[in-house]
Amino acid sequence: MISLEEARQRILAGIRPTGPETVALAAGWNRVLARPVISRLTQPPADVSAMDGYAVRAGDTAAGARLSVTGAAPAGRPFAGEVGPGEAVRIFTGGFVPAGADAILIQENARAAADGLEVLEPVAPGRWIRRRGLDFAEGQELLPAGRRLTARDIGLAAASNQPWLTVHRRPRIGILATGDEIALPGEPLPPGGIVSSNAHALAALVASAGGEGIILPIAPDDAGSIAALAGSGGYDLLVTTGGASVGEHDLVQKALGRDGFALDFWKIAMRPGKPLIWGRLGTMPVLGLPGNPVSALVCGVVFLLPALARMQGLPDQAPRTIQAAAGTDLPENDIRADHLRATLMRDAAGGWVATPASRQDSSMLAVLASADGLILRAPFAPALPKGGMVEVVPLAALGA
Amino acid sequence: MISLEEARQRILAGIRPTGPETVALAAGWNRVLARPVISRLTQPPADVSAMDGYAVRAGDTAAGARLSVTGAAPAGRPFAGEVGPGEAVRIFTGGFVPAGADAILIQENARAAADGLEVLEPVAPGRWIRRRGLDFAEGQELLPAGRRLTARDIGLAAASNQPWLTVHRRPRIGILATGDEIALPGEPLPPGGIVSSNAHALAALVASAGGEGIILPIAPDDAGSIAALAGSGGYDLLVTTGGASVGEHDLVQKALGRDGFALDFWKIAMRPGKPLIWGRLGTMPVLGLPGNPVSALVCGVVFLLPALARMQGLPDQAPRTIQAAAGTDLPENDIRADHLRATLMRDAAGGWVATPASRQDSSMLAVLASADGLILRAPFAPALPKGGMVEVVPLAALGA
Repeated sequence: MISLEEARQRILAGIRPTGPETVALAAGWNRVLARPVISRLTQPPADVSAMDGYAVRAGDTAAGARLSVTGAAPAGRPFAGEVGPGEAVRIFTGGFVPAGADAILIQENARAAADGLEVLEPVAPGRWIRRRGLDFAEGQELLPAGRRLTARDIGLAAASNQPWLTVHRRPRIGILATGDEIALPGEPLPPGGIVSSNAHALAALVASAGGEGIILPIAPDDAGSIAALAGSGGYDLLVTTGGASVGEHDLVQKALGRDGFALDFWKIAMRPGKPLIWGRLGTMPVLGLPGNPVSALVCGVVFLLPALARMQGLPDQAPRTIQAAAGTDLPENDIRADHLRATLMRDAAGGWVATPASRQDSSMLAVLASADGLILRAPFAPALPKGGMVEVVPLAALGA
Repeated sequence: MISLEEARQRILAGIRPTGPETVALAAGWNRVLARPVISRLTQPPADVSAMDGYAVRAGDTAAGARLSVTGAAPAGRPFAGEVGPGEAVRIFTGGFVPAGADAILIQENARAAADGLEVLEPVAPGRWIRRRGLDFAEGQELLPAGRRLTARDIGLAAASNQPWLTVHRRPRIGILATGDEIALPGEPLPPGGIVSSNAHALAALVASAGGEGIILPIAPDDAGSIAALAGSGGYDLLVTTGGASVGEHDLVQKALGRDGFALDFWKIAMRPGKPLIWGRLGTMPVLGLPGNPVSALVCGVVFLLPALARMQGLPDQAPRTIQAAAGTDLPENDIRADHLRATLMRDAAGGWVATPASRQDSSMLAVLASADGLILRAPFAPALPKGGMVEVVPLAALGA
């Protein structure tokens, strides 16, 4: 058996980021930048007013002074003239500060007078002026390569005048479920058969990580069918489910070996999900997950999500964890890294409490679906009393 | 001025969930169920083996006993006969337990013998058998209405034999940016003009919440153009940006009033983002956000995300918060609920520390984009020393 971490590192070592793709700004949300966003302009492009009021010379604003209003500078319509001694220009938030002015007299501190404007409170030089480039400057890197774009990032890229973005191409993941006994939902089920759930669950997992899952037709347990479907190709990664148990893996090996398939079969010290196939069909990496749906999904979280992150040029590799207090006593662990299906609740102080489901049977998909996260238990972790701290992979927040 | 919470409640009171839509299982990820998923089958459909081994009568398994192997029951291929006294049937994980057998003798506890099988360890009745319906039963509600579907949920729905799901239709949000001074990214910019960023940022925010944002052409500051674009309709909600400040809102009111627009203009005790328009054009709700990009996005998080949640039938309304320690001293707050742009880091104990950016100027979009979350400061919150606990809306995790 090899450790989970060793298996993950071996898989990641065989994964390359996808190439760049140009997409419209409007299609950029949640994509990962392949090139940084460099600002095409300076914002604000000139000194602008931070308030509604009057652009003035600060030296003219003794309390009670009178100023004559010679024009207006709303946002987007700069005042072409200059503010001379004793003059003021009406200005609004975002309006360019006209030449000659060095401060903004806010409107609350002025009053209309017969011959113009009366100053109620003096203003210091520079007050209420946002300097040119306060937000960002032309040529500045605003968003680095490797960043997954948020709504705010899209706004910032827009403000810096980018109609296009260069992002990593969405990873295309072929998903091949194998087994004579499985059928797609809604199709006639053979006697003793079970409904195939892995391909759809894994395609959703791929979508949650920003990839594109392609669900291949179910392959019966014969080498020719598996080989034909696996080789239909063009994927950045092929994921198979089933045919990974002892004995069964010969089938996948036999199916793919004829095409020069380099295959490793690993027993991984983890629970649920022990056997894993990892190899390469030509240049295409192949990840073979267990057929058990709970094992397939947990292995998907542990191995496939990090692979998808790397394919998109993201730095994060292992699934993120949170710290939580154990909601029950936890027994000591054996040699296999465990992933306990658990609910997450807040305690009175606002901290997380993770309580494992009472049944951890790897056949119980409903228990996995209703879990909020997976408590990680390291190999040989000692017994932990209720309230001790554990690491938890929160699943629902990932959409996983 | 009205409070943020009052404004949010008034808005939510005017929002209805979208109707149901039938989508293919494969398109169901991240959608919100409008009807529960009820299982169409019982899983497992019969008592099945939890291990690889032999289906036996427990009473026959004294150590050293010999059993004759009369058949095999792999997963998906049930054994048609019965296990009689002194007999065993080879069985694999997931295989149906044949009639007559009441336990699984795991393969590690048996040894091939000349005349069949030698028992090494006895087995108790019921051992290693997963009972019919252990995971779920036909007719059982597996996923409730109002649930946003995870990858695991898709797997569970598949396993329960659902090729279709009934979900809330994606909310269609029309987004109308107004202003003579703005232009789309990459388009010629008028002198003193600024690049429009709100519509794209808000469309991304809508996408992050599972809605569909429709970016309308920019409306110049004239009532006819605004009215024509706003009325182009078919949206579940129209969001406008700009034209919401004092004085300006007359324009939107004038533009929409001719169509029987019922409009409220609110000053909300919040920062950033004070003025808000809320009304109804025919049956279509209209939300008017400030033109300032930081204010528009923060108001989007505070008002639009909860509205999108309600439109999809989700129970959550206010954005979720986490508890964090303040990374700096925080001054006492004034009458306006504040939203401090902050970074989030872990302290040594694994708790969150939220440190506000040194500049909170509402014109600084780059500061907002680089923030990890918004520290909520209630109206008149007293000064808080560094290390005191604050509530934070984590933005990046939302994709917001």
